Amino acid sequence: MAKISKTSPLAPKGGFPKLPVINGVRFSTIAAGVKYADRSDVMLAQIDAGSSVAGAFTRSSTRSAPVLDCQSKLGRVEDDSKGFAFLVNSGNSNAFTGGAGVKAVEAITSATAQTMNLPASHIYTASTGVIGEPLPFEKITNALGELSESLAADRIEDAARAIMTTDTFPKGSSATCEIGGIEVTVAGIAKGSGMIAPDMATMLVYIFTDAKISQPGLQDMVSRLNEVTFNSITVDSDTSTSDSLLVAATGASGAEVEGNETFERTLGVVMKDLAHQVVRDGEGATKFVEIRVSGAINNIDARKVAMSIANSPLVKTAIAGEDPNWGRVVMAVGKSGVHADRDRLSIWFGDVLVAENGWVSPTYVESDAAAHMKGEDLAIRVDLGLGAGQSIVWTCDLTHGYIEINADYRS
Amino acid sequence: MAKISKTSPLAPKGGFPKLPVINGVRFSTIAAGVKYADRSDVMLAQIDAGSSVAGAFTRSSTRSAPVLDCQSKLGRVEDDSKGFAFLVNSGNSNAFTGGAGVKAVEAITSATAQTMNLPASHIYTASTGVIGEPLPFEKITNALGELSESLAADRIEDAARAIMTTDTFPKGSSATCEIGGIEVTVAGIAKGSGMIAPDMATMLVYIFTDAKISQPGLQDMVSRLNEVTFNSITVDSDTSTSDSLLVAATGASGAEVEGNETFERTLGVVMKDLAHQVVRDGEGATKFVEIRVSGAINNIDARKVAMSIANSPLVKTAIAGEDPNWGRVVMAVGKSGVHADRDRLSIWFGDVLVAENGWVSPTYVESDAAAHMKGEDLAIRVDLGLGAGQSIVWTCDLTHGYIEINADYRS
Repeated sequence: MAKISKTSPLAPKGGFPKLPVINGVRFSTIAAGVKYADRSDVMLAQIDAGSSVAGAFTRSSTRSAPVLDCQSKLGRVEDDSKGFAFLVNSGNSNAFTGGAGVKAVEAITSATAQTMNLPASHIYTASTGVIGEPLPFEKITNALGELSESLAADRIEDAARAIMTTDTFPKGSSATCEIGGIEVTVAGIAKGSGMIAPDMATMLVYIFTDAKISQPGLQDMVSRLNEVTFNSITVDSDTSTSDSLLVAATGASGAEVEGNETFERTLGVVMKDLAHQVVRDGEGATKFVEIRVSGAINNIDARKVAMSIANSPLVKTAIAGEDPNWGRVVMAVGKSGVHADRDRLSIWFGDVLVAENGWVSPTYVESDAAAHMKGEDLAIRVDLGLGAGQSIVWTCDLTHGYIEINADYRS
Repeated sequence: MAKISKTSPLAPKGGFPKLPVINGVRFSTIAAGVKYADRSDVMLAQIDAGSSVAGAFTRSSTRSAPVLDCQSKLGRVEDDSKGFAFLVNSGNSNAFTGGAGVKAVEAITSATAQTMNLPASHIYTASTGVIGEPLPFEKITNALGELSESLAADRIEDAARAIMTTDTFPKGSSATCEIGGIEVTVAGIAKGSGMIAPDMATMLVYIFTDAKISQPGLQDMVSRLNEVTFNSITVDSDTSTSDSLLVAATGASGAEVEGNETFERTLGVVMKDLAHQVVRDGEGATKFVEIRVSGAINNIDARKVAMSIANSPLVKTAIAGEDPNWGRVVMAVGKSGVHADRDRLSIWFGDVLVAENGWVSPTYVESDAAAHMKGEDLAIRVDLGLGAGQSIVWTCDLTHGYIEINADYRS
């Protein structure tokens, strides 16, 4: 596997943020030797009884065994006097491993259930790493004793590091809000450096809060927010077989947030920040790009246009080359398959109006747009001039670094 | 613009083929200085009265002015005592040029009509090159006199060269068949090195035959064959605003081919060969890849899976790295959005069965697949194990060369 260990130039300055403790959640990690030597590769999160767990998963039709298992459990509470556990390993994705993959999930969940004294249906696992190789699950089950004895509330950064694969930096984020005079805290971690390949860069996200909310209420918020955060990013248009997002609300703060918009916004801040960090760690990325589409007939059309621009290799290579190549944006609008009128299109790079009314803008001076393209955080805006539909997606550029990581080695 | 003048390693050995004369068609070219210095950049093809003209065009919603003009003319014969003319320039695509673009097309078609003594509706134009810049159409109209005086039946190779932009080799193909004891000939030319960018690599195809066939009959064949040839190739998933295919049947051989399957097959051979040549000139390509999908519920699903594999950056970079990374193929099947059952998938690299029944095949030895990947012409086959749907598409790998051509310059 490629050794691209240099931290992404787009990584948040200042390193991993100081994350607050979430009451009701404890973490531990261990170097179990699943694949990597000399680093932690399994993380356990213990979540207290009375918590709600919501989530979202890859829509791939070739989903991994752990994803299928998690999906079957979501929303079920077998024993409400019992909490939950998340167990995640890196180094092996247990994807496309046939019947052996299902058995490995069963072995890990039942051993974790026994060690933690929880029903197996309260155990959510995930695996990320190489695909098609049998998961050496005994290495994980043998480590459970030590994992369960070293749980601590302040070890979330260790957890963020244990789930990394080709990530160049660990990803964490937090936010707080006040609900009925009580401070509510949200903190989460993620891994992923693309949408992305099953053998390397699956996206996994774990978020925790001390807010009090029912499972359906939390699931509702998570599903809605997921669309405008993790489902609105793309590195290379490729979708992992293992992408998993889990959100646990322990209720330890006592703040009731059922249907509360302030809480939903706060959760959304953490989800968006983590989603952006995944793009900022996109394989080979040197530019972070917000694509904002407005004026479509509806939001679905706007999303299609935004994704068509964000996934276009020609747009992404132009961005890498710091080239304000609006012609490629026009092309990407045209190929998106949605209704567009060439003569109503307007395109901006940053604040610079580049094209309008089917041609280059009379006020356009290329050096203005070129100056914007030299930045690290870019914005491309397209207005279709047809309706009120809008969408925002985030992506990165396509560089030699992407080719190096994905082509210049034999797996 | 990038200067990548080295001929693609995948170019047909032996250079441009010797193409037969098609009775009823004459060509001329000229260096009109539309953009390039020191090379021909306009080609004129004169087609005799009594010919049928069929075609297919880009489905982009931001189509160029010449494409819209051609589409409005296809199938119309204003005066059946008159022939047709194709006029094509390289260096400027006249795409996204607003009202000025429409006026340029009108100016060129009416001047060509006058020079050639044809109705304007019998003139088909195309433009390929930089977008968003006004087409200096006077350079073209001023050259029409000289173009019309130098028409010759044996100048098709000159025509192939005049329409090139970033192509690294001119593309030509021919085939013959016998219909009712008469030899029928098909010869064509193409340009394009991707699906591809509006500012550089639009695909243009012109095919000529001396067969006798009605316009609707020819259009029917062209539309059908287009789906399994030019619409079955992809270099980078990006679609030009100017892609155009025109086929002219002069009838000069006297062979009646209405609904004739032998003729359709022969026309298909030329179309497929030209389509493959476009992929072989794909920007940065070092591998030509046939993706064959079978066992889908229907052909539409099979096409979606094949295109998902062919357009996956992770599959394409794995091919560039000569890595038989079947995990990425599984991922691409999964993200295609069609019904697939992980446990029924089979995958071959060349003749090597790599995966079956949801896991790596017990007979698989990686060195066998790795040996196949070292070749220049590769085959990836996927069977979904669900039904009889099938599809074949052709693509190339994604290499540093693609990034160099598209990122490492400012337009």
